[in-house]
Amino acid sequence: MTSCAERSAPVARVFRGTFMHSSGSAPLHILEDALLGVNEQGKVPVPHAAERWTFGLFFMPGLIDTHIHASQYSYTGTALDMPLLQWLNTYTFPTEANYKDLNFSKDVYTKVVKRTLKNGTTTACYFATIHTDSSLLLAEIADKFGQRALVGKVCMDVNKAVKHYKETPEQSKKETNRFVHELLRRNYPLVMPIVTPRFAVSCSPQLLSHLGDIAKNNNLHIQSHISENKEEVNLVKELFPSCQSYTEVYRKHNLLTDKTVMAHGCHLTDSELKLFRDAGAAISHCPNSNISLCSGMLDVRRVLKSKVKLGLGTDVAGGYSPSMLDAIRRALDTSKALKIKDPQHETLSFEEVFRLATLGGSQALCLEKKTGSFEVGKDFDALLINPLVQDGPFDLEQVFFGGNIKAEHALHPFDSAGDDRNIREVYISGKRVVPFQKSL
Amino acid sequence: MTSCAERSAPVARVFRGTFMHSSGSAPLHILEDALLGVNEQGKVPVPHAAERWTFGLFFMPGLIDTHIHASQYSYTGTALDMPLLQWLNTYTFPTEANYKDLNFSKDVYTKVVKRTLKNGTTTACYFATIHTDSSLLLAEIADKFGQRALVGKVCMDVNKAVKHYKETPEQSKKETNRFVHELLRRNYPLVMPIVTPRFAVSCSPQLLSHLGDIAKNNNLHIQSHISENKEEVNLVKELFPSCQSYTEVYRKHNLLTDKTVMAHGCHLTDSELKLFRDAGAAISHCPNSNISLCSGMLDVRRVLKSKVKLGLGTDVAGGYSPSMLDAIRRALDTSKALKIKDPQHETLSFEEVFRLATLGGSQALCLEKKTGSFEVGKDFDALLINPLVQDGPFDLEQVFFGGNIKAEHALHPFDSAGDDRNIREVYISGKRVVPFQKSL
Ligand SMILES: [Zn+2]
Ligand SMILES: [Zn+2]
Repeated sequence: MTSCAERSAPVARVFRGTFMHSSGSAPLHILEDALLGVNEQGKVPVPHAAERWTFGLFFMPGLIDTHIHASQYSYTGTALDMPLLQWLNTYTFPTEANYKDLNFSKDVYTKVVKRTLKNGTTTACYFATIHTDSSLLLAEIADKFGQRALVGKVCMDVNKAVKHYKETPEQSKKETNRFVHELLRRNYPLVMPIVTPRFAVSCSPQLLSHLGDIAKNNNLHIQSHISENKEEVNLVKELFPSCQSYTEVYRKHNLLTDKTVMAHGCHLTDSELKLFRDAGAAISHCPNSNISLCSGMLDVRRVLKSKVKLGLGTDVAGGYSPSMLDAIRRALDTSKALKIKDPQHETLSFEEVFRLATLGGSQALCLEKKTGSFEVGKDFDALLINPLVQDGPFDLEQVFFGGNIKAEHALHPFDSAGDDRNIREVYISGKRVVPFQKSL
Repeated sequence: MTSCAERSAPVARVFRGTFMHSSGSAPLHILEDALLGVNEQGKVPVPHAAERWTFGLFFMPGLIDTHIHASQYSYTGTALDMPLLQWLNTYTFPTEANYKDLNFSKDVYTKVVKRTLKNGTTTACYFATIHTDSSLLLAEIADKFGQRALVGKVCMDVNKAVKHYKETPEQSKKETNRFVHELLRRNYPLVMPIVTPRFAVSCSPQLLSHLGDIAKNNNLHIQSHISENKEEVNLVKELFPSCQSYTEVYRKHNLLTDKTVMAHGCHLTDSELKLFRDAGAAISHCPNSNISLCSGMLDVRRVLKSKVKLGLGTDVAGGYSPSMLDAIRRALDTSKALKIKDPQHETLSFEEVFRLATLGGSQALCLEKKTGSFEVGKDFDALLINPLVQDGPFDLEQVFFGGNIKAEHALHPFDSAGDDRNIREVYISGKRVVPFQKSL
């Protein structure tokens, strides 16, 4: 499997092999022995028929992490011994305050971008911290390494636990405007700003209004958290007594749009899901985090039946793994845990979760015209998977299960036992970004 | 961190560094800057005081997999789309029947032993298949690679789905005797036979009686499955109407002893747990398998409170990962899932699960005099962990969280994000078995 470069336009490059991706009509489409042309703009122009090709490597769409806190990466895998609100006060806020320091920021953010790229995350929707320059640095680093990213400077004007880690509503408005306009001015091809109120508990109504206005006036993406655990849901009810629901808090402030992605949503009611659907807003399902912090279990089947857009997220560091392969596994686990509780529950299939991690994520981030599958016209965001890599995390037998050599038999063990060692190359918008360029 | 070989007896070798292990009194003991002597028999004679040592690598006890089907390794990570009884009939029995072929067996069993060793499993309690010579081959391979193992030739005389994969009670008795005596005759230092009725559903009362007698007459270990899912529990009630409980089926046939380990036990009643405690029998908790097959969730806290011995198992291939690090993570997940269901549930701590994977496992297999911790007199079964390995699965920051350099900060990210790349060396009974000897 090689790429044949320098072909005449409009096909600048042709990738040959097995391609697996999802579509609206089927969670897993397999194109065996296919040629995929990519033009000079890194776009997929048209699939070609091709001659036979030997089993082994395959291409899949890049993974899309719809919710990750770049700033929390420094303590991933530690400190998961308390529920959400205490966890924020004890670990998260003190850590995030350190990102005032640009050297510290550069070090951690470089590691996050490299780590997620190595794990096949071609698109990441990042929370940074309240610090504008540090958040801009995250955007710069994502651009440098060629990662598609939405980057959010975090906004919060309420923080009783760590009093020095917050802004005034006016500061937050001003700095968000500065962040957005500076980032747009830089005109990075793949990195965009996203308006980021931390969550209703950390934001005054005044701040929420400012942020809704900024998003509306600039037609921007929006991200926040919603209905992660029950204590938080109750607290929001107290804090916003005039709103009928948690979702209503955001909706009322123009923060629930078709470019909104809200993390978690474990405890949303049916009428809240309806608000999501009517607005075209999306949910980021972060199963590792939800289990690790004992927050709750999102019933993804119910969300899908409600026709609300949904992607997967790692929620580093509430989730302890920066790998979307972990998110795939934990999403299946949560679905199966719900079935153990209720035998009538219809579990997610492996293929459905694969779709959520790719096409579903692109829809949740309103980027489905750009990425998420190998549909004609999209950018070529792809992983070249080698299930048989030497010194890899699993053995040959698993791929040749039953002697019945079918391409999807390589996808299952990769998704359940694979890791970054199996990801030989990562392409974003047609450009190879992993292995990293030596100059970086 | 190096070992200083060739010292004068009784200390043949001294390991220097940070040692982390569990004891009956505390789930996590950390010996910083310690020297540990290992004598010529590979035993830990006495810890020495030592000079300061720099932070980084550490030793922990080898991991103990109390339940793994070596024969099912060939399809790990695939085929987890149906509940237990259908899964056995559709995937497991047809696959296991292939182990009549010794070449096939040798290939897969070599891969299992190497894979588990690389993942730090110093002791494995294996199910093979019904084939005696193939099961002996598994024992031979474990011995060759230096793994501590209990190996069971599987016994079953009932199989309605795959009629050619079963024995008569007399064949099974005869072959079990042949297996046990041949394995004992070979006198492998670390590999022992274990009597292995598959589970009550696959065994007639007559066969269970034979196996109880063989175990009793030779003072052997016993392993089987119990109370994995509800359909199975109901089926056992139908098949053994004279027994008050599933546990009673085994107890009645002399298969519930202080050398018994039973996998799963998700649905055991209080009175059954009492039978376990009275017999000194143990449970192998296999959380990945229990979730993957939607079998149920074992309440480990309840088992521990009942003072029943408990270890962790991968249950490959009901569980999709052969790594005990995965078993550690999934055990925490299950405990947290139980807390989400019932906020009063007291979750397992990280340290408690670490203990279950090491000391707990040794107790469950009645091998606590040999392995499971660095207590004086035990064999030196140890992993040398390098959290900072180049191209490893996580980054430096996580280890130095908060700038507060403490040894346990290296253990947490290893346990939550580490993999075989962090396991630099594996020792069993004082002998280095990973990296593998070139001659193997
Ligand atoms: Zn979050
Ligand atoms: Zn089993």
